[in-house]
Amino acid sequence: MTDKLRLGIIKVLTSDDPDWLNSHGRIIERLFPDIKTVSRCIHDQPQGIFDKATLRKAEPKILRLAAEMEREGLDGLFVSCAEDPAVEGIQHSAGIPVLGAGTASALAALSYGRPVGVLGLDERAPTPMKVLLGNRMSGAARPKGVVNAFDLSKPGAEEDFVAAAMDLHEKGAGVIALACTGFSTLGIAPVLSRRIGLPVVDPVVAGGYFMRFMMMSK
Amino acid sequence: MTDKLRLGIIKVLTSDDPDWLNSHGRIIERLFPDIKTVSRCIHDQPQGIFDKATLRKAEPKILRLAAEMEREGLDGLFVSCAEDPAVEGIQHSAGIPVLGAGTASALAALSYGRPVGVLGLDERAPTPMKVLLGNRMSGAARPKGVVNAFDLSKPGAEEDFVAAAMDLHEKGAGVIALACTGFSTLGIAPVLSRRIGLPVVDPVVAGGYFMRFMMMSK
Repeated sequence: MTDKLRLGIIKVLTSDDPDWLNSHGRIIERLFPDIKTVSRCIHDQPQGIFDKATLRKAEPKILRLAAEMEREGLDGLFVSCAEDPAVEGIQHSAGIPVLGAGTASALAALSYGRPVGVLGLDERAPTPMKVLLGNRMSGAARPKGVVNAFDLSKPGAEEDFVAAAMDLHEKGAGVIALACTGFSTLGIAPVLSRRIGLPVVDPVVAGGYFMRFMMMSK
Repeated sequence: MTDKLRLGIIKVLTSDDPDWLNSHGRIIERLFPDIKTVSRCIHDQPQGIFDKATLRKAEPKILRLAAEMEREGLDGLFVSCAEDPAVEGIQHSAGIPVLGAGTASALAALSYGRPVGVLGLDERAPTPMKVLLGNRMSGAARPKGVVNAFDLSKPGAEEDFVAAAMDLHEKGAGVIALACTGFSTLGIAPVLSRRIGLPVVDPVVAGGYFMRFMMMSK
């Protein structure tokens, strides 16, 4: 038990609900039983990150939290937000592998060798995903009516997701990269994949794969 | 046992040595016990792929072999060569996930968020890696004295590898992506990583991660 890989997970929405806090850790632990996760969230952002202002507000808090968590002894750190907030900054100073959910989702989607449609909270893809995908991105969309992480479980949300993903499909996507880790908490990737007939990349699942690869290759 | 994922592996050098033929399959099965690999090689290329002419000669053979293997019932197909020979063609017609070792190595290396040095059989990076890495590629190099897959186990080869990797490091690489799956057979990635102090991506190991991700996400 003691020789499990220890993965830190930073969540970017403030909550004292341990079930919610550990939701992404549980996904990764279920995938890789040799990983033990430790999850923390930033303070004073009960609505999370959903625009430029909330992103800018979160970054210094994430940097501080990452430094604290690294000192506790971890094998790697995953920032569970598709904007990869503060990830470059943490990578500069950290001595362990560090990854953001946006990079994870984009890189995993590229492995299919098909045009990538990005489905997130915004009609624009998160910057790190846009940069990595370049001209391999066929488009970006958001489920209508979804503005922040709280709207995801509203009635009718699944149909909004399907409509947005179908729209990406019709505009040329051969694979869908999810661009919000709140979608991972919902478990929407396999549902969408079945309904639209395309592979759908879950950013937290993808993150689990990359983190294990990096932690094992150190 | 019967519900293991079945992964086909295409090797691009002709050999009737079953130990050699299954060498990459063994690496992936050791990583992921829920994957069973089936390896085949192309005919009449005892020296493998090491330049444009041998690449062009191999492509139609790989396409045919891939179609044959898919008909036998597989969950995915990995072309174990960093030039990704015929991979785009197979992806167009195959109903299962298909990946080449070059794409796998490049994408895994990008997860580190650092400039990528490419270490292969050639002073030029394989085309698919060059395209994916773009300006995130800091340089490419080859171990001096290594011309084809047979030279890899010659005496002194390890020092040639270290010198080439150090050269990439000095020119700005923060991670090394190996660009020849013969290097995976040698098991050089962990040796190099220890000697030069940078992460070194093994293309077959990376391929195992991506293939499992895609086969599980179908």
